[in-house]
Amino acid sequence: MSLEQFISNAISPWMKNPGPDDDIVMSTRIRLARNLEDFPFPSSTSQDAARALYKHVYERLSQTSKEMVGKLIWLPMDGLSTIEKTVLVEKHLTSPQFAKESKQGAVVLNNDETISMMVNEEDHLRIQCLSPGFQLSEGYKSADKLDDWIESHVTYAFDEKKGYLTSCPTNVGTGMRASVMMHLPALVTTQQLNRILPAVSQLGLVVRGIYGEGSEARGNLFQISNQMTLGKSEEDIIEELRGVVLQLIERERNTRRELLKHNQLQLADQVHRSYGILANSRIIESKEAGNHLSTLRLGIDLDLIRGIEGNILNELMVLIQPAFLQQFAEQELTADGRDERRATLIRERLKLENIQDGGGET
Amino acid sequence: MSLEQFISNAISPWMKNPGPDDDIVMSTRIRLARNLEDFPFPSSTSQDAARALYKHVYERLSQTSKEMVGKLIWLPMDGLSTIEKTVLVEKHLTSPQFAKESKQGAVVLNNDETISMMVNEEDHLRIQCLSPGFQLSEGYKSADKLDDWIESHVTYAFDEKKGYLTSCPTNVGTGMRASVMMHLPALVTTQQLNRILPAVSQLGLVVRGIYGEGSEARGNLFQISNQMTLGKSEEDIIEELRGVVLQLIERERNTRRELLKHNQLQLADQVHRSYGILANSRIIESKEAGNHLSTLRLGIDLDLIRGIEGNILNELMVLIQPAFLQQFAEQELTADGRDERRATLIRERLKLENIQDGGGET
Repeated sequence: MSLEQFISNAISPWMKNPGPDDDIVMSTRIRLARNLEDFPFPSSTSQDAARALYKHVYERLSQTSKEMVGKLIWLPMDGLSTIEKTVLVEKHLTSPQFAKESKQGAVVLNNDETISMMVNEEDHLRIQCLSPGFQLSEGYKSADKLDDWIESHVTYAFDEKKGYLTSCPTNVGTGMRASVMMHLPALVTTQQLNRILPAVSQLGLVVRGIYGEGSEARGNLFQISNQMTLGKSEEDIIEELRGVVLQLIERERNTRRELLKHNQLQLADQVHRSYGILANSRIIESKEAGNHLSTLRLGIDLDLIRGIEGNILNELMVLIQPAFLQQFAEQELTADGRDERRATLIRERLKLENIQDGGGET
Repeated sequence: MSLEQFISNAISPWMKNPGPDDDIVMSTRIRLARNLEDFPFPSSTSQDAARALYKHVYERLSQTSKEMVGKLIWLPMDGLSTIEKTVLVEKHLTSPQFAKESKQGAVVLNNDETISMMVNEEDHLRIQCLSPGFQLSEGYKSADKLDDWIESHVTYAFDEKKGYLTSCPTNVGTGMRASVMMHLPALVTTQQLNRILPAVSQLGLVVRGIYGEGSEARGNLFQISNQMTLGKSEEDIIEELRGVVLQLIERERNTRRELLKHNQLQLADQVHRSYGILANSRIIESKEAGNHLSTLRLGIDLDLIRGIEGNILNELMVLIQPAFLQQFAEQELTADGRDERRATLIRERLKLENIQDGGGET
């Protein structure tokens, strides 16, 4: 398979599209946790009960999906290889825990992978809408519409006082987690983010690395999401998150402008060095690659380097993950093997671009 | 001036030629310290006496030089700008001290700069022969021939017991310093050189950095020369130095082979990263540039990278020195300005090459 074909298959179609504020917000995600009445929660269920739940959901939704979301693809987890499962994690379509172990778990996807659903994860259903750039309201509208449609076919476990009932108490209420993936290299470099993060937490928001809970920030990418799901409406949660993200966007943009104004040459040096290393190394670890990709993306945004597609950071941050590398290599790889393959993939990918010096957006 | 023209003017013609063992020995230098009878040593002389010495030497040698060494160029130091003087230092044609301050000092050069002479440095005459690669005997023969020719026109201060009398007692005797510039990246990387150096000192040899006494080693380049000038014949000094250098060449070559055998991928990674940084950085300090140039040169020698001229290390190590950069810029530069100009010069120089992957010489 050629690299172009591999990338075209590997990258979710929605990731290739532009979105609002996508110089800083890579993507927006809305996730709803839902459970069905009269079925035990997946955490305490037997294989048989889990199978019954899957069958119930599949029968109600699979034949009618076209009317609402177009054709859905149903992927039972036990039909997938370990690498295929990990690819779903790396595309943010399943959680790492779910890929490792699930009773009768399945992933349901629409054609461009903007809409997906896990069945038999921590909750019976985890509905997810992904969109490029900063699109909280639009994402929520899609998720809500999908939720309504699903609810018209199954009966949700719902309590008038508490709201949606969920497996883990932290999700009770709206069952919603809204999150935004932000690229904040200027706030990291100037060490402002360390001071901002405690304030963000106090506002009831959580900041995580690129692969969710417990994952380290890579490539200066941060996932910002609501902590609370109870006692607030979906609209309030969205509005509060939007307010904080807008402030972060503004601060990141101002800081980038300041950096460019006072340190253009130093910044250009870093950007071009990162390009030089990515385009030439023979071995590269995921963390180092992430840092250089972040710097390169910043250089593209600030017009310090030209001729490289803007979404190269998003694309390569996904492609350099272990499972993708193994899929590309068509074999299992050791950690050393992955570092070598990662360098090759980045090098080959950058050869498809035609870089030039930039003028600097001043 | 185009970069090609600048380089062609800046690099001594002899540096462009290949030489024996020039994968490891960059150049060989023979220096003879000579003083004339009936003139006070330069260190204790007056301006008038220094002028008289210069006049005496110029009259005896300038008209007759063609018969022996071809046309000689006489460059009185007070006719040169600070940058021009420093260029002579960076080409190893004068000492840093001499460029800074001298009474009636002058540099005499032949056409390809293999033969040079300082007048009124620490000694009345410092004769120097430079050759590419490892050519101790050949270099000594040239220096000796030149010395004989000069002696046929002037009267040296010579003592039957002590030999040639010199300004500094450490040069009395043969007045000869033979030195070899070696590129020893494998011995440095494997930390063998630290263990070898004390043994080399015990054999009466001195190891210095690229710009002589007190200078730090840059680009893994080391100058190895004799310490003693008294009590040994020129031939003995040459033979002892040759023996040690041959051993160092063998150890460096063996270590390179071992590194390639066991760490080819890691080595290729370093070589290509060094290329990537040199070809892309916008700011680079002399020390960092030296290290990357050394790694790149090792990669060329080991066939890990192709399409780059082998003598790029020698050439660029000279060109990235402060005075050359200022000559290239046609203006005086601050340290920051030099770091920027250095990066530009290296980048532009590497654009003239057409790099390819190498197979690795296994």
